Amino acid sequence: MLNVHLLPHTHDDVGWVKTVDQYYYGGKHLVGVVPDTHHGSRIPSEPWTAGWGQCLAWAPVWRRVPLALLVPECPTPVSTVQNELHHGAVKNILDSVISALRAEPSRRFVYVEMAFFSRWWHQQTNATQQAVRELVRQGRLEFANGGWVMNDEAATHYGAIVDQMTLGLRFLQDTFGDDGRPRVAWHIDPFGHSREQASLFAQMGFDGIFLGRMDYQDRELRKKKREMELVWRASASLQPPTADLFTGLLSNAYDPPKHLCWDLVCDHDSSMVGDPFSPEDNADVLIDHFLDVATKQWQSYRTNHIVMTMGGDFHYENAHMWFSNLDKLIQLVNAEQQASGSPVHVLYSTPACYLWELNKANLTWSLKEDDFFPYADGPHQFWTGYFSSRPALKRYERVSYNFLQVCKQLEALAAPAANVGPYGSGDSALLEEAMAVLQHHDAITGTSRQLVADDYARRLAAGWGRCEVLLSNALARLSGSQEAFSICPELNISVCPLSQTSARFQVAIYNPLARKVDRMVRLPVSAGAFLVKDPSGHAVPSDVLLLPQPEGQKPSPELLFSASVPALGFSIYSVSRVSLRRSKTHIPQPISQKPGSAVLNIKNEHIRATFNLETGFLMQIEDLEQKLVLPMNQSFFWYKAGTVGQKISQSSGAYIFKPQQQKPLPVSDSAQIHLLKTPLVQEVHQNFSAWCAQVVRLYRGQRHLELEWTVGPIPVGHLLEDLLLLGLSLSIKPRPLTGGISQVPGAGAGSPPHPHTHPCHQDGKKQLTVLTDRSQGGSSLQDGSLELMVHRRLLLDDNRGVGEPLLEEGSGSWVRGRHLVLLDAVGTAAAGHRLLAEKEVLAPQVVLAPSGSALYHPGATRQLQFSGLRRELPPSVHLLTLARWGPQTLLLRLEHQFARGEDSGRNLSSPVTLNLQNLFSTFTITRLQETTLAANQPRASASRLQWNPDTGTTPTPTVPPLDPASITLQPMEIRTFVASVQWEEFAWSHGGDPVQA
Amino acid sequence: MLNVHLLPHTHDDVGWVKTVDQYYYGGKHLVGVVPDTHHGSRIPSEPWTAGWGQCLAWAPVWRRVPLALLVPECPTPVSTVQNELHHGAVKNILDSVISALRAEPSRRFVYVEMAFFSRWWHQQTNATQQAVRELVRQGRLEFANGGWVMNDEAATHYGAIVDQMTLGLRFLQDTFGDDGRPRVAWHIDPFGHSREQASLFAQMGFDGIFLGRMDYQDRELRKKKREMELVWRASASLQPPTADLFTGLLSNAYDPPKHLCWDLVCDHDSSMVGDPFSPEDNADVLIDHFLDVATKQWQSYRTNHIVMTMGGDFHYENAHMWFSNLDKLIQLVNAEQQASGSPVHVLYSTPACYLWELNKANLTWSLKEDDFFPYADGPHQFWTGYFSSRPALKRYERVSYNFLQVCKQLEALAAPAANVGPYGSGDSALLEEAMAVLQHHDAITGTSRQLVADDYARRLAAGWGRCEVLLSNALARLSGSQEAFSICPELNISVCPLSQTSARFQVAIYNPLARKVDRMVRLPVSAGAFLVKDPSGHAVPSDVLLLPQPEGQKPSPELLFSASVPALGFSIYSVSRVSLRRSKTHIPQPISQKPGSAVLNIKNEHIRATFNLETGFLMQIEDLEQKLVLPMNQSFFWYKAGTVGQKISQSSGAYIFKPQQQKPLPVSDSAQIHLLKTPLVQEVHQNFSAWCAQVVRLYRGQRHLELEWTVGPIPVGHLLEDLLLLGLSLSIKPRPLTGGISQVPGAGAGSPPHPHTHPCHQDGKKQLTVLTDRSQGGSSLQDGSLELMVHRRLLLDDNRGVGEPLLEEGSGSWVRGRHLVLLDAVGTAAAGHRLLAEKEVLAPQVVLAPSGSALYHPGATRQLQFSGLRRELPPSVHLLTLARWGPQTLLLRLEHQFARGEDSGRNLSSPVTLNLQNLFSTFTITRLQETTLAANQPRASASRLQWNPDTGTTPTPTVPPLDPASITLQPMEIRTFVASVQWEEFAWSHGGDPVQA
Repeated sequence: MLNVHLLPHTHDDVGWVKTVDQYYYGGKHLVGVVPDTHHGSRIPSEPWTAGWGQCLAWAPVWRRVPLALLVPECPTPVSTVQNELHHGAVKNILDSVISALRAEPSRRFVYVEMAFFSRWWHQQTNATQQAVRELVRQGRLEFANGGWVMNDEAATHYGAIVDQMTLGLRFLQDTFGDDGRPRVAWHIDPFGHSREQASLFAQMGFDGIFLGRMDYQDRELRKKKREMELVWRASASLQPPTADLFTGLLSNAYDPPKHLCWDLVCDHDSSMVGDPFSPEDNADVLIDHFLDVATKQWQSYRTNHIVMTMGGDFHYENAHMWFSNLDKLIQLVNAEQQASGSPVHVLYSTPACYLWELNKANLTWSLKEDDFFPYADGPHQFWTGYFSSRPALKRYERVSYNFLQVCKQLEALAAPAANVGPYGSGDSALLEEAMAVLQHHDAITGTSRQLVADDYARRLAAGWGRCEVLLSNALARLSGSQEAFSICPELNISVCPLSQTSARFQVAIYNPLARKVDRMVRLPVSAGAFLVKDPSGHAVPSDVLLLPQPEGQKPSPELLFSASVPALGFSIYSVSRVSLRRSKTHIPQPISQKPGSAVLNIKNEHIRATFNLETGFLMQIEDLEQKLVLPMNQSFFWYKAGTVGQKISQSSGAYIFKPQQQKPLPVSDSAQIHLLKTPLVQEVHQNFSAWCAQVVRLYRGQRHLELEWTVGPIPVGHLLEDLLLLGLSLSIKPRPLTGGISQVPGAGAGSPPHPHTHPCHQDGKKQLTVLTDRSQGGSSLQDGSLELMVHRRLLLDDNRGVGEPLLEEGSGSWVRGRHLVLLDAVGTAAAGHRLLAEKEVLAPQVVLAPSGSALYHPGATRQLQFSGLRRELPPSVHLLTLARWGPQTLLLRLEHQFARGEDSGRNLSSPVTLNLQNLFSTFTITRLQETTLAANQPRASASRLQWNPDTGTTPTPTVPPLDPASITLQPMEIRTFVASVQWEEFAWSHGGDPVQA
Repeated sequence: MLNVHLLPHTHDDVGWVKTVDQYYYGGKHLVGVVPDTHHGSRIPSEPWTAGWGQCLAWAPVWRRVPLALLVPECPTPVSTVQNELHHGAVKNILDSVISALRAEPSRRFVYVEMAFFSRWWHQQTNATQQAVRELVRQGRLEFANGGWVMNDEAATHYGAIVDQMTLGLRFLQDTFGDDGRPRVAWHIDPFGHSREQASLFAQMGFDGIFLGRMDYQDRELRKKKREMELVWRASASLQPPTADLFTGLLSNAYDPPKHLCWDLVCDHDSSMVGDPFSPEDNADVLIDHFLDVATKQWQSYRTNHIVMTMGGDFHYENAHMWFSNLDKLIQLVNAEQQASGSPVHVLYSTPACYLWELNKANLTWSLKEDDFFPYADGPHQFWTGYFSSRPALKRYERVSYNFLQVCKQLEALAAPAANVGPYGSGDSALLEEAMAVLQHHDAITGTSRQLVADDYARRLAAGWGRCEVLLSNALARLSGSQEAFSICPELNISVCPLSQTSARFQVAIYNPLARKVDRMVRLPVSAGAFLVKDPSGHAVPSDVLLLPQPEGQKPSPELLFSASVPALGFSIYSVSRVSLRRSKTHIPQPISQKPGSAVLNIKNEHIRATFNLETGFLMQIEDLEQKLVLPMNQSFFWYKAGTVGQKISQSSGAYIFKPQQQKPLPVSDSAQIHLLKTPLVQEVHQNFSAWCAQVVRLYRGQRHLELEWTVGPIPVGHLLEDLLLLGLSLSIKPRPLTGGISQVPGAGAGSPPHPHTHPCHQDGKKQLTVLTDRSQGGSSLQDGSLELMVHRRLLLDDNRGVGEPLLEEGSGSWVRGRHLVLLDAVGTAAAGHRLLAEKEVLAPQVVLAPSGSALYHPGATRQLQFSGLRRELPPSVHLLTLARWGPQTLLLRLEHQFARGEDSGRNLSSPVTLNLQNLFSTFTITRLQETTLAANQPRASASRLQWNPDTGTTPTPTVPPLDPASITLQPMEIRTFVASVQWEEFAWSHGGDPVQA
């Protein structure tokens, strides 16, 4: 007997071809028909362009090619041509599904995306809410996954994944209690699956996960071997079964079987008629077809149960259509079973019910330990383009992650004074929600339409606004002075009106790490020399650099100084212009090309970088202490993509990277270079072409080399011989080089949950590591080569539904970013790159203020330095989360950031024990409760279904009793706590080592 | 203050782009994607082709042109290319609307088409039925129109209109009582409106009608003059206000205002958001727009009320979408009114509520007395093509009307013995429903897709099947013998296996008129001579004709004899082959062309027709008694239509007739002719081309000339110089000729409710009248010319939604039909054509049986002749309906078939009084109740809203007391009765003048 579980479900993208709000309300304006009034007044003018995407010209040569002339061959964007309706009105879906569930008790439904559901929930009457609570209680409405969105697994940062899952699951817990807690993770659409994501889900307490997309060859093989259901061991560091996750691979992605799609958007399938008097009657044909599909599917699975996903993208807007057909299907198939003894029984079900049946079968399952990456849905159709698509948006998301953590920390440290203060009302909620939305698998991936990408940026910008108020309130409270704090979001392009026009100003720097950091601060200023004082009033060394600007613009000086900031706290530096007599301004000097073997060096106490004077390219890095030498040849390349009119089987697009040739072409044979040397920094400025430049930089004291690249707009059209630019690769070619390299960036790059690290071993001794500042596709097609795709521009769509080529005209066309390059001995490389990565992901936040402000309140003491910690945490511990949870509670996550056995130098891979008592300076923990990772269950009472891998069963370890004075973290472990706290009245006076102004 | 009545409604075509069942169940297979299994086994192979549409070649020359070679240029039918989904699932609409009405008490909805509603009703549970009854009782669900379909007004026969309205309204009355009785007629989609239709609606008791389509110039003028609402005086014969009907012309057809369409099929309009926090919020813009539309519309209307139709074709499949937007619109507009004093109030309403408000305004209204025909929706866009589109289907409908009346009469006369008898179970219900469906404005009009036209034919054929059983049962009962009765549906192409293979057989002829008829019977037989005997056993004169057949087929003899049949009864003739010695077979003889003035004549005692021997064309008709002479020149023409690739602003299509040149082109300059003369008939056979022929025929004793044309398949392609055939015109050009001619065929051709009459006055004395056998477009562009469009074939669609060119490949490609031509003095012409028309519309039904059968039951008496009437009705009275109504009741309609003052010869236009007592031979009327025309209200208690035309008010006449012995009919009056009856045990023994076998 075969039981077929029908799963009625809808897959509601949180933005894709339409914006989130368009999908919620059913808006039908797509790109090309948006009326001017629609967005004009509401969206700040390209908010993220100004802040993060744009990059002004670095050298005059940039402007020599009139860019407008390059694009006459550019086709009209597809979206304005194929402007067909894209259905979707989640409001209607939920109205309609609830009504259909209430009409017939046997029906069931699965809902997933809390970004939509919570919004709908808050618009309902009490009566409807009560009815929905009852449906949830009875299991007729079941939530799966339950995150704010169904996040991407490649381009995301694991911290943001944890945040967005926490946001969604918390809504469910608050609204429905345990009845609403999803038992099953449901990642049926993301474009490949990372082991790290599975580990996170396991730690959140999920009983299993269902996946929709996987490599087409892997799928065929697994079907043959009946390994479509398996146990995934998702961590090499965590003790099994902590990170084991039962994984079900769905037979038909998340779609219904052919001919059995009964949504209003299913154009070709007929409804079940079941009326013998009608010439339209098709019941016999459809029932036969269903039985055929079911028995065929059964051949790839191992129990007497199989599952069919009855739904799709934005299905169930008219739930009645789906349900009345399923009602009839169930009735007729089961009647057939009774009448003619067919072996098939069919029932309404849910993922959790189906999983329960699988568990009851008590089989042993094959064990998997690697990723489901990269994803290809056909030959030469690898979904690896999206690792790099929309690099500007990808960077804006990372900077926003950084800022959100700053915002949440200050909200926790300064308590209610952060939310309401002299600057008004602020909170982290709006940015938290915006960041959660950005984790959606069409957001951070860059696979939405341009209109939608703009809307994602708008959401982040709106979230920043409220966090800036919070930050000002909190800094005022903690520093005791009402400064007119402001953030300069355009510092990356050296624009900051306050520092550029003031002779005196203050620079507050907030450090979100649990350890002190030293940081070079670089600010555009007015002409002249400057005196910089630290919080104790001592002068610190500083330089003024004068960098060339695009033609017609005045050269803008930049002030550079080194700052030091305590853990979870801030330092306030003061800057004042001094008499010109002391001024020394540094200007980059042109270096002419020299044939032969002439070289150029920059170096500091740790590193020397050498340049070939014939090509202008970086040719060698040396670690001076360890005497490690790495020859290389670094420059920029591009891949040919298909163009309009060309006959190609698969074009590159937002999802897919499919170059027309295997080898990339160099952007140029040589780079023009300039050299800048100051006491604090040494820089080689390389100009590869009108739209491609790089600064190779060494700050004093830093152990890594910084490559700051500036690329775009990528030209298209006849000037490139009718071949259109697909992307661009930075190629580092250390030779000889052995060992592999991950093809996948982001959260899922192998087991360590740290993004942007591209390690590259050499002969078992040296390790080259490149940290990126956002998700980037990377590959090492031959040993010794490393390519990172920094930017993409495409004239064709890749036919995966977005229906718009990735033109990136406007906001995302110019991009600047940084690669941090570390050369180290293998045994100590992890210590270097993990601690550097932490500093990049949670970088200090620079806040400016004019000098001379009022006190926070009469009698307040000005504090120029503050720490939220009474003692630093050890280097292996990362403070992943510090945030407000309730009126008197905080959420705290502590993470061991080294993998088992990773560090052989300072023993950073060992377990570490912390004392949380008396740790924080602004509050006291009065009660501590440990929870699962998403904070929706107490850890002590959480239990998961047990699964037996074919390698043998491991018993679930018992949870030790909780002692706040002795919290031990194992390698890669994250422990999550809800802490009841009491804030101190004058928290800052006890904190750290304050210095009075 | 302006009150805006919102009318939520759906317009559900009973077949159009999809079949009735596809629309009901939401089937999505359109032409081109129908799987073979879908229709192959269920639909009888082209049922109407065999019977009525097809026409075998008349002369060998027909086959000389290989037709397949003519169509290589024919484009792929549009439907297989533009195969986009056409929404529509009435089952879902009704489910969804009822659910939405129950969810919110303020909502209202209008439903119209009983073909769908009754079907849905019978599939509901008792609980749902009860809930719907309550919605109807409370006025939240209101029925408008209430016919089985929303019938066409041009191509229909008035008798079929009355039948289909009766069927629908009876369902409502039986199901909901007076709560469900529609007060308002609702013809918002038919393509023009006839005065006769309005008269019928008035006689059915409607308070008013709303119309959607009218000539675009008329509409503009009426808007300016505020004459969009008016009183229509729909009869010149009936005493006002009997046929007065209040008429509202809707502002925007039946669509919602621009931007305010909230159905799922409205691709471009956004839902009302009303969420100030969403960038999608559009409430302000939409409310302003709504107020603007409302106040502009108000300028064309006269009261403080206007109406907006909120719905469209197959809208409300997801009723929630529409209603939730309307809820919000009402809420926001009325809130605006409260807040800022806007003068607009908006409410859910119904047509009846709105009409009631108009009536309360107590204004006087302009009076209209003519048609709304022809309909043009733009310059040169006249919807006159559909008068002729699909002539084969149009004819099949007329023949089916005839057969249905025969079937219903026999069901009434023979009582239960008709329904269940020796041949099984039969009834008229299936054909009644099929005929009702055929009246739909995309059915009889020929404006559906081919797939759907085939389905209409299939429905008729299925209805015929059950009526044939009934007819056999009834004839057996009434004749007392169990014959193996059979109908030969292919008699029109001279195919009838029984008569062609038997040496002896019987011919039963049933006459559905209330008067005796004489009729020429023509049957294919085997070779030889035949003896024909009447019911008294007397031999009657007969001829055998031998007509040429298509190449390769054996010549088939036809037997011709004259029969006489009593009123509402039958005569049974016997035919037997006799010795060859007595045989004389008549064969048409070729007549060679002769230049100059040579002529050829055929004539009988009343008429002489003369042919020009140079051209072969008919050139003169003479009435020999009255000495009237009408010279003419009759032949066939065709119009050039647009072709693929030609740039034309409007192409001809199923709806629109738009020739590319004003003058038609002749099919040929001359016709080859053959002559046949026998004692009973004289015929000239004309061959115009390979696909166009005609027989001009004069039977002995007949007062009209018969033109039997055979046309098709119309060739397309290069052979016609790349000009594709649009249609073909039969042009009769009597000169000189004065007076006008109706452009419109069908029920609405001027005031007399008789179709197919094309009168043509000449100099005030002579009148030429042409009776057609189906709806045909006609025109007289110049005085003295008459064109009737007999067939159409088009390669382009005319862009009115059907999305398929009228190719008529297959079933409808060859068509045969007859024009009956009468020449008379003006004062006596009506008597001639009205009595002839009656004989054509309700022609005798020929039924065959082999000789030598059993008795109906032992002891039964064989009856070879029978009449259901004890006395004939006077010639001015037409028995419009005689049908079973209930177990002991019949429905009876008597009609005065002459208009006021129409006949000056025999005084047939005078009122006439009948005695119904003891009139029928098989039953006695025990009680008589008069009703309104559709039999859903007693006439005595029916009352209609009173309206004041600006010409003065006429009081409603009082209804005189009913006396069955004295029923007076005024000119054009139809009186409808429900009669309680008692059937006689051996009815036939008292009937007429039976002759024993």
